[in-house]
Amino acid sequence: MAARWVDLNADVGESFGAYRLGADEALMEVVTSVNVACGFHAGDPRVMERTVRRAARGGLGVGAHVGYPDLVGFGRRPMALSPEEVRTDVLYQLGALFAFCRAAGVALQHVKPHGALYNTALKDEAVAEAVVQAVAAFDRELVVLAIRGSALAAAAERAGLRVAYEGFVDRQYRADGSLVPRDRPGAVIHDPEVAAQRAVQMVVDRRIRSVEGVEIETHVDTLCIHGDTPEAPAIARAVRQRLEAAGVEVRPLASRSQSEH
Amino acid sequence: MAARWVDLNADVGESFGAYRLGADEALMEVVTSVNVACGFHAGDPRVMERTVRRAARGGLGVGAHVGYPDLVGFGRRPMALSPEEVRTDVLYQLGALFAFCRAAGVALQHVKPHGALYNTALKDEAVAEAVVQAVAAFDRELVVLAIRGSALAAAAERAGLRVAYEGFVDRQYRADGSLVPRDRPGAVIHDPEVAAQRAVQMVVDRRIRSVEGVEIETHVDTLCIHGDTPEAPAIARAVRQRLEAAGVEVRPLASRSQSEH
Amino acid sequence: MAARWVDLNADVGESFGAYRLGADEALMEVVTSVNVACGFHAGDPRVMERTVRRAARGGLGVGAHVGYPDLVGFGRRPMALSPEEVRTDVLYQLGALFAFCRAAGVALQHVKPHGALYNTALKDEAVAEAVVQAVAAFDRELVVLAIRGSALAAAAERAGLRVAYEGFVDRQYRADGSLVPRDRPGAVIHDPEVAAQRAVQMVVDRRIRSVEGVEIETHVDTLCIHGDTPEAPAIARAVRQRLEAAGVEVRPLASRSQSEH
Amino acid sequence: MAARWVDLNADVGESFGAYRLGADEALMEVVTSVNVACGFHAGDPRVMERTVRRAARGGLGVGAHVGYPDLVGFGRRPMALSPEEVRTDVLYQLGALFAFCRAAGVALQHVKPHGALYNTALKDEAVAEAVVQAVAAFDRELVVLAIRGSALAAAAERAGLRVAYEGFVDRQYRADGSLVPRDRPGAVIHDPEVAAQRAVQMVVDRRIRSVEGVEIETHVDTLCIHGDTPEAPAIARAVRQRLEAAGVEVRPLASRSQSEH
Repeated sequence: MAARWVDLNADVGESFGAYRLGADEALMEVVTSVNVACGFHAGDPRVMERTVRRAARGGLGVGAHVGYPDLVGFGRRPMALSPEEVRTDVLYQLGALFAFCRAAGVALQHVKPHGALYNTALKDEAVAEAVVQAVAAFDRELVVLAIRGSALAAAAERAGLRVAYEGFVDRQYRADGSLVPRDRPGAVIHDPEVAAQRAVQMVVDRRIRSVEGVEIETHVDTLCIHGDTPEAPAIARAVRQRLEAAGVEVRPLASRSQSEH
Repeated sequence: MAARWVDLNADVGESFGAYRLGADEALMEVVTSVNVACGFHAGDPRVMERTVRRAARGGLGVGAHVGYPDLVGFGRRPMALSPEEVRTDVLYQLGALFAFCRAAGVALQHVKPHGALYNTALKDEAVAEAVVQAVAAFDRELVVLAIRGSALAAAAERAGLRVAYEGFVDRQYRADGSLVPRDRPGAVIHDPEVAAQRAVQMVVDRRIRSVEGVEIETHVDTLCIHGDTPEAPAIARAVRQRLEAAGVEVRPLASRSQSEH
Repeated sequence: MAARWVDLNADVGESFGAYRLGADEALMEVVTSVNVACGFHAGDPRVMERTVRRAARGGLGVGAHVGYPDLVGFGRRPMALSPEEVRTDVLYQLGALFAFCRAAGVALQHVKPHGALYNTALKDEAVAEAVVQAVAAFDRELVVLAIRGSALAAAAERAGLRVAYEGFVDRQYRADGSLVPRDRPGAVIHDPEVAAQRAVQMVVDRRIRSVEGVEIETHVDTLCIHGDTPEAPAIARAVRQRLEAAGVEVRPLASRSQSEH
Repeated sequence: MAARWVDLNADVGESFGAYRLGADEALMEVVTSVNVACGFHAGDPRVMERTVRRAARGGLGVGAHVGYPDLVGFGRRPMALSPEEVRTDVLYQLGALFAFCRAAGVALQHVKPHGALYNTALKDEAVAEAVVQAVAAFDRELVVLAIRGSALAAAAERAGLRVAYEGFVDRQYRADGSLVPRDRPGAVIHDPEVAAQRAVQMVVDRRIRSVEGVEIETHVDTLCIHGDTPEAPAIARAVRQRLEAAGVEVRPLASRSQSEH
C-alpha cells in the first residue's frame, strides 16, 4: 500500500507597516507550507523578508499568495481586471517574493491566488489562464494550488504545470464537492477535534461526508488552515497530530514526485 | 592602444496606468542600456513588461531603476527610510523587475537608484550600504551604476560588486568632479552638438573642462541621457553618432571584458 | 416661448504628480462646469487646488468627479464595493474637493461619478443609492449629474436632490435612449461640426436621431465633452458656438431654478 | 481664583481596512478630544466614519490628525515635502475628515499634525506656516494643537488662529521645556498613578519637575494620552480621575470660554 503524505498550508505575512495581523508565529510551528502575501492586498517588504526567513528556518515550503492591488479591501473585493492585468500583476508579485526567497536561500515552491482573485480564478477561464501564464513564464517548477476540478486546476494542467489539490479542514462540503458558503449556519467548523477528524478522513480514507450526508471522494495534496480565526493554531495542531497518529507524513509539496493524479 | 567603449543609459518605463511619460520609443533606438522604473516611484506591471520586452528586442542592457515608495512625488522627495527599509524596498523592486526579465528571456544587467534615493545613496554611507546589500543578496553579477568617488560606488566596491561609473553629457561639472546643481544658470546643456562633443571628450580624452575652466580627469563607463527634456532623443542621437565617429564602441555594460578599473 | 439654456461639462484635474493628462486649459476656456478628479482614480492635492482655482477664476461650476480607489486602473475597472464602501469613499472625496473649493472661495456645485463607478451607479440600485446617500449627507444643495432614466437619477430624485440630465454630443444613441457602446464602429463622433449640430438638436429641438434612424426625445441639462480625445477642445468650441448662435444660453448649473422636469 | 479646566486628547481612527490598531473604544470613554487619522498615514473612509460617529455620540471634540502620505511608514518617516505639498496635503485631509463630521452632525474642532509631520512643524518654520495656511484657508475657527514655544504655535498665533498648548503626561521634560527623547531610559512614564500626579501638577500647580530636578512652568490646555501603549486606557482613566478629584473640569476645547493666553 502506498505511503500517505499531505501538506498543510496557511496564509501568513499579512501584516503591513505598523499593522499586525494573523498568528504567523504559532502557525509556522505547525504547517509545512506558507502562502506569503506579496504587497498588493497585504504584506510589505519588511514583513515579506521576515516571513520568508522564518519559513526558511523552519524548512517550510514558501508560496506566493498573489492578490488584487487593493490593500484597503484586503484583496477580497472582486475587480474586473483584464487577463493582461492579472498576468502582469501576478508576474510582478512572483518576482517580488522571489527576491526575498533568493536572499534567504530558499526556493519558491508554489503559488496560491488570494481572496477574490482565487475565487475568480477557480471559476473564470480567462483569469485562470492569465494566472497560469504568469506562473509558466516565471518558473515552470512552481506548483499551483487549486481546488480539484476548478478552472484554475484545469488551466494549470493544460499548461503542464504541477497542481496541488487543496482541501479545507474547517469547512463543510456539498455533494458536488464544492464548499458550503461561509455565511451559511454550520458552514465553518470551529472545533479542532472535528477538523482533525475530517483531515484524516480526507487524506486517509479519501472521502468525506457532505453536508447532505453523501460520501464524496477526495483527492487532497494540501490542507488549508485558515489563519483568520482565533482557533486557527489549535486547529492546525490538532490536524497535524491526528494525521501523524494515523501514519500520514506531513511535509511540504516540494519534495514529492507527483504520481497520485 | 586600448579599445574604447562606452554604454549609453536612459531612464524609461516611467509611464503609469493611463499616464504616459517620456520618449521611451525614441530613446530605446539609440541608447544601449535602460533603467526601468519598478512600480514604486513610477511604472506599473504592464509598463514594465512592455518596456523590458522592447529592450530585449533591441539587445539593450536592462537595469532596475529602484526608487522611494512615493508615486505622487515621483521618488524625488527625500524620505528618511531606515537602512532596513531601503534594503528591503530595493530587494522587492529588483525581484519585481527580474520577473519581467525572466519572462522576456533577458538578463537583469544593472541597478541604478532613482531620484532622491540616488542622491542620498551617493552621499550617505548607510543608505549606500543598504542598496548594495540588497543587490548582493539578489545577484552578485549585477552592475551598480554610480558616480565615481561616491558613497554608493565605495560601498559597491567594498562588497566586491562591479561598478559602472556614470558621466553626464548634458550637465556642467565643477572642478571637484561634482555636478553644477540643475537650477544654476547654464548648468544644463541643451545643445545636442555640445553634449556630443563633451561625450567624446569624457570617453576618448578622459577629461572635461569644468565650469571654472579647469581640466578634470574622467572615468566613464556609461553616459546618462536624461529623458525628461524635449531634446533628449536628439542629444542621444548626436552623442552616439559622434562617439562612433571617434571610434568608440557604444554597447551595453553586460559584456564582461571591462578591465579599466 | 421659454428661454433655453444648457451647461457644458468636462472632466478635468486628472493629472497626477509628475504626470500630465488632458487638455484642461483649453477645455476650461469653453465649458461652463468641470468634473474635478478627487485623488482616488486621478488627481492629487496640488492638481485639485490648481484646477479649482482656475475654475473659480473662470466662473465655472465645480463638481466632484468621484471614483473608485484605483489609480493604476484610472477608475475604469469595475470593483465590487459594498454600498457602505461606495458611500464612505464618495463622502471622503466630496470633503477633500470641498476643502479646495472653500479655500478658493467657490461653492461645490455638483457630483458626477467617474468611469466604472458611474456606469455601475447608472444601472445598480444599491450603488446608486450609496452615492446619493453620501451626497445627501454632505450637502443637499449639490446637483447630481446622471443620465435620465438611470438608477442614479431615480435614486437622487427619490432623495429629493436636484438632478441634471446629461447628454453626449460625441456619441450615437440607440432608440431606447442608451448610448451605442464605444467600441462599435461609428459609435464615437469625431467631427466637431457634427457634434455641434447634434448638441443644438438635443437642446433646441429636444430630439435626436438614433443610430437606427428613429427620432427620440431628449431632456438635457448638461452636455458632456469628453476630454480624452485630441479633438475635444475643437468639439467644445464648435458646440458652444453653435448653441449660442441658436440662441441657447450656455451657463453653469448652479444658477438655474429647476423647472423643466 | 479662576476655574481650572483641561482637555484630554488621544489619537484614534488609526485602523485601516482589515487591520485593527489602538484601543479606540476604551480611550473614547475617557478622553474629551480625539485626533482622527485622515487616510494618509492611517485610517480609511469606513474607519473615519465609525470614529467620528462614536466621538459625536460621546460629545468629544473631533480633530483632524493630518499626516504625511506614507501608509507603510505610518507617517513616522520624515519626508521632504515642499510647503505647497504640505499645505495642499493638509487641506485635502481636513476636507476629507470634515465630510464625516458634517454627515455626523458634529463640528470639526481642531487640527493636530501626526508623527513626522508634527515633529517637523514644531521646528521648521516653513512647514509650520504651510500647515497653518491650510487651516486658515479651510476654517479660521479651528484650534491648532501645538507645543508652547514651537514654530507651529508661533505660526498659528501670527495667523490669529486659536492655539491649544499640549502637555504630555507620560513623558519626562527637560529644563528647557522640551521632552526627553523617547529612547532615553526613563523618558516614558508607564505608571498610571505617576502620570496622573504629573497631570495634576501641570494643570493645577502649573509647574512640573524636569528630569534635571528643576521646576519649570507649564501652560497646558490639552494633555496628550498616547494610545500606542498597552497601559494607555489605564493612564487615561487615572489622569482623568485625579484631575477631577483636584477640581479640574475635564472638557473639550471647543467651548470658547478660554481666556488664559
